[in-house]
Amino acid sequence: MSGKKLGAGVVRTDRLLMDGRTIRYYDTQGQERNAVDQREPETQPKIGEMRLDPLNNEWVVMAAHRQTRIFLPPKELNPLAPSRPGFLTEIPESDYEVVVFDNRSPSLRDTDAPEKIPSELTLETPPVPAAGKCEVVCFTSSYDASFKDLSPNQIRTVLEAWRDRVAELSKVDYIEHIAPFENRGEEVGVTLAHPHGQIYAYPNLPVKTTQMLAVATAHKKRTGRVLLDDVVARELSDKVRIVAENKEWVAYVPYAARYPFEIHVAPKRSVTDLAELDEQACEAFPTIAKEVLQRLDGVFDMKMAYIAAWHQAPVRVGRDVMRLHWQITSVRRAPGKLKYLAGSESAFGAFMMDVWPEQSAQQLRDVRI
Amino acid sequence: MSGKKLGAGVVRTDRLLMDGRTIRYYDTQGQERNAVDQREPETQPKIGEMRLDPLNNEWVVMAAHRQTRIFLPPKELNPLAPSRPGFLTEIPESDYEVVVFDNRSPSLRDTDAPEKIPSELTLETPPVPAAGKCEVVCFTSSYDASFKDLSPNQIRTVLEAWRDRVAELSKVDYIEHIAPFENRGEEVGVTLAHPHGQIYAYPNLPVKTTQMLAVATAHKKRTGRVLLDDVVARELSDKVRIVAENKEWVAYVPYAARYPFEIHVAPKRSVTDLAELDEQACEAFPTIAKEVLQRLDGVFDMKMAYIAAWHQAPVRVGRDVMRLHWQITSVRRAPGKLKYLAGSESAFGAFMMDVWPEQSAQQLRDVRI
Repeated sequence: MSGKKLGAGVVRTDRLLMDGRTIRYYDTQGQERNAVDQREPETQPKIGEMRLDPLNNEWVVMAAHRQTRIFLPPKELNPLAPSRPGFLTEIPESDYEVVVFDNRSPSLRDTDAPEKIPSELTLETPPVPAAGKCEVVCFTSSYDASFKDLSPNQIRTVLEAWRDRVAELSKVDYIEHIAPFENRGEEVGVTLAHPHGQIYAYPNLPVKTTQMLAVATAHKKRTGRVLLDDVVARELSDKVRIVAENKEWVAYVPYAARYPFEIHVAPKRSVTDLAELDEQACEAFPTIAKEVLQRLDGVFDMKMAYIAAWHQAPVRVGRDVMRLHWQITSVRRAPGKLKYLAGSESAFGAFMMDVWPEQSAQQLRDVRI
Repeated sequence: MSGKKLGAGVVRTDRLLMDGRTIRYYDTQGQERNAVDQREPETQPKIGEMRLDPLNNEWVVMAAHRQTRIFLPPKELNPLAPSRPGFLTEIPESDYEVVVFDNRSPSLRDTDAPEKIPSELTLETPPVPAAGKCEVVCFTSSYDASFKDLSPNQIRTVLEAWRDRVAELSKVDYIEHIAPFENRGEEVGVTLAHPHGQIYAYPNLPVKTTQMLAVATAHKKRTGRVLLDDVVARELSDKVRIVAENKEWVAYVPYAARYPFEIHVAPKRSVTDLAELDEQACEAFPTIAKEVLQRLDGVFDMKMAYIAAWHQAPVRVGRDVMRLHWQITSVRRAPGKLKYLAGSESAFGAFMMDVWPEQSAQQLRDVRI
């Protein structure tokens, strides 16, 4: 079976898992991927339901089958390890570079009968099926590694996998927005310690994306310019919050950061989404990604819990005003202390920050790497 | 010094703390409150700054002095205990029923020079002072108690304190919204174990309140009715998500709950805010409040971490469409498992629920109390 050729010499090979889910191997060494999933076939969970929260007009996904998903298994029972004799995992091969497969307990899943999501949302709006995709991205077969420990070539392979998934998922007719992200650390709810991320492909614009689109649209109307371009220009001009920089990318603590350690990483030549990054930008990403995450772990010399999320233009709307960037937010504010979303943040959406963004940027810059 | 008479025989007496902050004693037994704060005077922290997050047009409060605030002291160093010889706390008296005092490390603080918050928010919007109020509400002098352990009379006194604070803070010209809430449990970031809540009085409408106001306004325009009235009517009609009920109040797991254990408690005869509750509604509140929190702790027979927040009409706008209710959200989904806001929820605002609200309501109803 010949694979699909992507950038940087990466080749993708697709295989099926025992229950019909797809696993995609992203390789750089010409590997053959023929291993068959030997596990007993099992039935995939049914599609969930999206209900409209009538007080906020926001969709909430009901995916009750997820309550029983695997929870922090020990290393020897790691389902994201390569399979080995006597222990069959989600990855049938005995080794891999990067894989992306459909989540076994997806919050959103594919469907043959997508329903149109009503544009006018009211108390009477009925539930709709939770259509979409939830995919798991394994960054490496090495259990003890972390994104920052990957080589630049490995990070480039992950980037090619993200780009490939964004390009392909953008073609699915019921998908409106694609969100690759990584949760790292039990402090942010990670249930599997193996280094991995996820891709959520939503059938609607998520709440934050809707909000960012409205603000970016108003900015374009008022100024004729793209909001993120102006934000990046301000950060480059203010200088005091910049954490790292190369010819193609800049990393900064945003002017109004919400978390003690929050870093945004944006391409200097703005692009709509991951799929549209050009070769120079792709080539320059791994080093700055690695540096930023090394600085983050260096601040307290410990593994920082973080959420690293790619924000990009939605699939079908706002592509003239929304731009790609990577938001990394850490919930740690000091060794032994976390930033929690309590009453003000969680119930009212009003964030309180304990650290000046300029001070946080200084701490990140001061890390010796 | 004679106090101010409130409902249910509660009398409020004001005193000053060593740094000029006010402490208010809410008493039912005619106590004299003459104790003087014997601690060394200290300077109050300066007012913080609100910066506009330009990608979301949301204000973030910078209150860097809070980073060093007291963090989980042992019981013998509890600053919310009554003062005793050799250990002076925030409460100069040797005992108290309910007290409300200005937070020593406030995110928002009072000012003589409030600035008008711009109504048009753009990338160029300058920062404004973080004006407002942060108050601490001690529910009882008993360290080991919890809200659910209070007697109905004690809960009534807390309710009178909340109502008094809402009425008074509503008269401050730079305050636009008042949010009494309780964070309970280290899992939601509580830094003091003593049973207490907080009141945040914001100089603007917080994000969630702005959103709820927009939705409620659209509902009124479309139907002529008040949104929360219709939501409560649906819950009463659907029945399956009701957790507790009396003549004046109903408690339900909302139709599109975001947390495995989420309970909303609403007056049946809707009112705008806490200050406007009438005697019958006040009288009926303590028993349902106690029952609901007992049921919550009963589900797994453990102290559940929760955020309990009063949502009400803003001070100056939307009083024809917004209504009072109490939202209790627990982050626990099972013994040993928490619900985290990870990539989808935190970065994109898209909530994924692991439990059907109807199932959660059943579990809460099944608790024997």
